[in-house]
Amino acid sequence: MAGDVLADQVGDVVGTWYGYVAAHPHLLAYFSPPDGEPDANYLERVRPRFEQWILDTCRRPYDQAWLDYQHEIALRHTRSKKDQTDHVNAVDQVPLRHIIAFVYPITATIRPFLSQKGHDSADVERMFQAWFKAVTLEVALWSRPYTLQDAW
Amino acid sequence: MAGDVLADQVGDVVGTWYGYVAAHPHLLAYFSPPDGEPDANYLERVRPRFEQWILDTCRRPYDQAWLDYQHEIALRHTRSKKDQTDHVNAVDQVPLRHIIAFVYPITATIRPFLSQKGHDSADVERMFQAWFKAVTLEVALWSRPYTLQDAW
Repeated sequence: MAGDVLADQVGDVVGTWYGYVAAHPHLLAYFSPPDGEPDANYLERVRPRFEQWILDTCRRPYDQAWLDYQHEIALRHTRSKKDQTDHVNAVDQVPLRHIIAFVYPITATIRPFLSQKGHDSADVERMFQAWFKAVTLEVALWSRPYTLQDAW
Repeated sequence: MAGDVLADQVGDVVGTWYGYVAAHPHLLAYFSPPDGEPDANYLERVRPRFEQWILDTCRRPYDQAWLDYQHEIALRHTRSKKDQTDHVNAVDQVPLRHIIAFVYPITATIRPFLSQKGHDSADVERMFQAWFKAVTLEVALWSRPYTLQDAW
């Protein structure tokens, strides 16, 4: 249900998150070379993938293909793969602490979008809880390549 | 404010969380020796510290002493220090993925307790958001000793 509610709003949702990133230099730094200016091309190339991720989070079944996809997302934030997809020269890793902290803004900002399509408050609450659980689960999966052997 | 609201409810809050742990064998396992039965003594020794943690999460200032305390909590879930405080023989580590996943139940279950003291819905919502932010921040800090060098 949340996927249908968000489908025509993903541009605005990601716009909200980009505004949040842009307002925090310590986050914008991960779209920039070390001590350099943000790479506008990189920011724009990431945007449609970020939009697709919203719908995938709502709609994809929790199967092996989904687990593999989550692992690929994780690697693309680490030194193994960050910047390679877009052939950019930015900082080579988003530290794990920022990945975990993002659970809060990515969750707290979604509720207004979930209530845009006329659902009653009980349905909006159910969609919000499902989103919060899904994002938390994904972040737990994304932590894997950051973690010491046998500690994940 | 949340600290005052929760102060006389911390036993019930932790009781709720213990019920959640007890209902999930893969979580209860961390209070047990490998392939053994849960250690009731260990569970009871942890309980008052868990209750105190609720109040500390609400009330402690974010200073160096608090950072040191968070790091100590983190270590007590890893092979460095788990089981030592209580001199028990249980599994020697709570894997990071479970620590991160716990953001959800620890947050989702708190709202009914926040609304027990007659605050209006706007105040309850503010307390809920503050709790959600604080728990997410603490989990980000707790991930540090689990993380590869220069990846935290």
